Amino acid sequence: MNWRGWGDPAKARELPETIVTLLHDLLGVRAPASPGASLEEVRLPPPALPEPALAGLAEVVGPQHVRTDHETRVRHTRGKSTPDLLRMRAGDASDAPDAVVAPGSHDEVLGVLDLCSRERVAVVPFGGGTSVVGGLTPDRSGFAGVVALDLARLDRLVDVDTESMVATLEPGLRAPEAERLLAGHGLTLGHFPQSFEYATLGGFAAARSSGQASAGYGRFDDLVVGLTVATPRGTVELGRAPKSAAGPDLRQVFLGSEGAFGVITSLRLRVRRRPAERRYEGWRFPSFADGARALRALAQEGPLPTVLRLSDETETMIGLARPDAIGRGGDGCLAITGFEGASVAGRRDAAAAVLEAHGGVPLGREPGEAWEHGRFSAPYLRDSLLAVGATVETLETAGFWANLPRLYDTVRLALLGALGAPLVMCHISHVYETGASLYFTVVTPAGLEEWEQAKRQVSRAIVAAGGTVTHHHGVGRDHREAYAEEIGPLGVDILRGIKASVDPRGVLNPGVLIP
Amino acid sequence: MNWRGWGDPAKARELPETIVTLLHDLLGVRAPASPGASLEEVRLPPPALPEPALAGLAEVVGPQHVRTDHETRVRHTRGKSTPDLLRMRAGDASDAPDAVVAPGSHDEVLGVLDLCSRERVAVVPFGGGTSVVGGLTPDRSGFAGVVALDLARLDRLVDVDTESMVATLEPGLRAPEAERLLAGHGLTLGHFPQSFEYATLGGFAAARSSGQASAGYGRFDDLVVGLTVATPRGTVELGRAPKSAAGPDLRQVFLGSEGAFGVITSLRLRVRRRPAERRYEGWRFPSFADGARALRALAQEGPLPTVLRLSDETETMIGLARPDAIGRGGDGCLAITGFEGASVAGRRDAAAAVLEAHGGVPLGREPGEAWEHGRFSAPYLRDSLLAVGATVETLETAGFWANLPRLYDTVRLALLGALGAPLVMCHISHVYETGASLYFTVVTPAGLEEWEQAKRQVSRAIVAAGGTVTHHHGVGRDHREAYAEEIGPLGVDILRGIKASVDPRGVLNPGVLIP
Repeated sequence: MNWRGWGDPAKARELPETIVTLLHDLLGVRAPASPGASLEEVRLPPPALPEPALAGLAEVVGPQHVRTDHETRVRHTRGKSTPDLLRMRAGDASDAPDAVVAPGSHDEVLGVLDLCSRERVAVVPFGGGTSVVGGLTPDRSGFAGVVALDLARLDRLVDVDTESMVATLEPGLRAPEAERLLAGHGLTLGHFPQSFEYATLGGFAAARSSGQASAGYGRFDDLVVGLTVATPRGTVELGRAPKSAAGPDLRQVFLGSEGAFGVITSLRLRVRRRPAERRYEGWRFPSFADGARALRALAQEGPLPTVLRLSDETETMIGLARPDAIGRGGDGCLAITGFEGASVAGRRDAAAAVLEAHGGVPLGREPGEAWEHGRFSAPYLRDSLLAVGATVETLETAGFWANLPRLYDTVRLALLGALGAPLVMCHISHVYETGASLYFTVVTPAGLEEWEQAKRQVSRAIVAAGGTVTHHHGVGRDHREAYAEEIGPLGVDILRGIKASVDPRGVLNPGVLIP
Repeated sequence: MNWRGWGDPAKARELPETIVTLLHDLLGVRAPASPGASLEEVRLPPPALPEPALAGLAEVVGPQHVRTDHETRVRHTRGKSTPDLLRMRAGDASDAPDAVVAPGSHDEVLGVLDLCSRERVAVVPFGGGTSVVGGLTPDRSGFAGVVALDLARLDRLVDVDTESMVATLEPGLRAPEAERLLAGHGLTLGHFPQSFEYATLGGFAAARSSGQASAGYGRFDDLVVGLTVATPRGTVELGRAPKSAAGPDLRQVFLGSEGAFGVITSLRLRVRRRPAERRYEGWRFPSFADGARALRALAQEGPLPTVLRLSDETETMIGLARPDAIGRGGDGCLAITGFEGASVAGRRDAAAAVLEAHGGVPLGREPGEAWEHGRFSAPYLRDSLLAVGATVETLETAGFWANLPRLYDTVRLALLGALGAPLVMCHISHVYETGASLYFTVVTPAGLEEWEQAKRQVSRAIVAAGGTVTHHHGVGRDHREAYAEEIGPLGVDILRGIKASVDPRGVLNPGVLIP
């Protein structure tokens, strides 16, 4: 993973000259003065962890699994938000952990948490390091040091139960490796978020990830039927049945807990047979409102495709839905439908009738396949834009259908108000019977501070307009204040009550999630 | 509602003489010595609530909404489990509340909770009074008194949003009235548990109810997209989108909280169009295992009917699936399928092919329609059995498919071990991709104490066998100890941490849910 960008640096591409000119002329984007810091130039704080704590950690996980070298610390600093990347390019790794600890088992995680709780060392669970909301940037104050708990060694497919269609997997598995292991049994999770290539199963659960095929396979929280969680006070084991009336669903307390309540050390996940057939297509709608009505009809009356997304007019014009053809978009609003599994032809035809009844014009398979092919490449595009001096970032919300137009206008107005004239694009990528997500991409010449101020304003505006501050990115530090407004002071007290019961010394990812 | 039985006493029927003889000869059931207490004969504890507390309550809700008369107190004593009915028939209402308070608004609920918290008065939220797990029987010790908070006056359909397909309803609405109000808009919740005729929406949410059409419409917790909750520390407002990544799903903390964390005062529920078409049918399978495989195939590969249930050999033989023909069952295992909504014929035919492939033999519409007609009558049948001296009770669990045979055997063995030779019947009535529920009906000559001891043994055995102690009845007092084993000591601490944050004096339904 590129330490100051995304993924494999070899996959990055330069932007076409036309786009660079467009960014310059339209948005006033200027090339950065310097290419940014090299790995060696990055400034780290001196390691703060007392020697006895380090020795204790080495005793728990083995000395070779406690690392304090420059590169390892840099590579476990913050996540992959645009501010994270800008800070790293500026050579600032002031949030680096003092040590990176890699436990090899549930019991070793328990041991690390026990020791860190006693020694008041903050612990940041680290999976793929792909957080875009500051989920890996804890508060240091009051702690003897910060440890990144790298879960990469917990990477097994433990069990496959094809009768219940439940697989037991470990949290450090990256999604492609999990899919490869499950494919050996003819199975799939069907979870394909944009972070797919690097993110881990534990991270998906801890941050309530939602994949691009959520209409067909569900969100990641829908896949979780059981969890084992290590906490400073011991183990919590949850999930004896798909559903139960035995009290509150405590799985739903740890899903979305972002490392603040415990470390997920095992996941029981619902699996499906790998689809025999797939069909991806493009559709054009006269307007975002028309397209949204069509998506709503499919979500409420069916048949629901496996993948269903709709770009607004700006995103369609720019052509963001297919990174191979960026800058060569089209009119109206592009929708992508994907069908996988059984009866693809029949479901596709029934959905096509609904889409056509709402003004959709079929564009054939080419745009659908181009989207599918490029589905994980947007983060690379961000690196190319950052390289020419454009600040590009994404943010998202969700709401009930009747409130979506208000949320859409609110976010655009807040961005325009804060940033002058940014380029703002939007798509719907996750639909439900009662509502949908809105995912915004912003391109602006604004610098780090200006962007961060705009982001805070937008988050507050979203909550004021009745939306949720995040549909699938999570809370982290970046959404913490707006999240507190969203759930109210008693909601925050409930989180604090839960945290006090499992993490009484407050060492788990302090400052993340809970204000 | 019959104060010592179920529903409208006029609807009760006498058992056929053949059944009475069968119960006598096979199970040793003997007619009770006395017909049981009359309403006037029921013994209540003297009202314990101090006069200033009563006056304070009258100030909050109006004096006409604070009642302490004999009949009102009796009618708010305990719920509708068989032990509850047996105690009432014995004239024992020792768990009666000291007063019944009926608030007319969210603010009045807040006022009652504030006052009761200050005066250390226990508060039992009361909807339809249909709990079968002791959910209305709080601990008195340490409290100045017990108040039943009757939510009957919170009975409005507040808002219908047909774009989002979300309706806002109040918790005191009984299900038939909610359906009648929604039918005026062409809508339905599709939630039809056996308690349908008397239970309320607030109770469905607080106890995680699951209706007979859960395969098609989802469980009640699937319907809830938003909640307003009154607590002694103020209001919690949850649900800004169908789904969110903004932290733990706090809706799932209040769903299943059984009045221990707060009082639900408003529900935003997903609604559907009323189905234009319906088709119910019967199927016969050679064995419970064959039928379960067929149900699993439909749950995992589809198409899933709206209603899907399967009786085991004993339940089929007794004919419990159709109360009009009790004692005239048949061979093998009876399954019921129901299809509602769009494309009924196509979905039915596709499902029929799956059922036939697994050995199912179609029995036509008659058994399906008979089941549908009698779907709410089992509780009346219980009254008739109690009248002739048979103790009849139900219990349920759920698990993953691979564990269901073990759970089935475990429950039957535990009942046989505890009760000698009871009649034990079972059905699957709720299916998921990864598992299903098991619902047992037990008929025994055992008395109250013997039954309660057997019930405790079965609950422990279910948990030891990896199942959940309840699929849709809830925890109440009756499952409290087994539930603590199910979620473990840290799970219990989490519940206590939540409760301390919203109900620091512990006045909300003390002793229910949380050990």
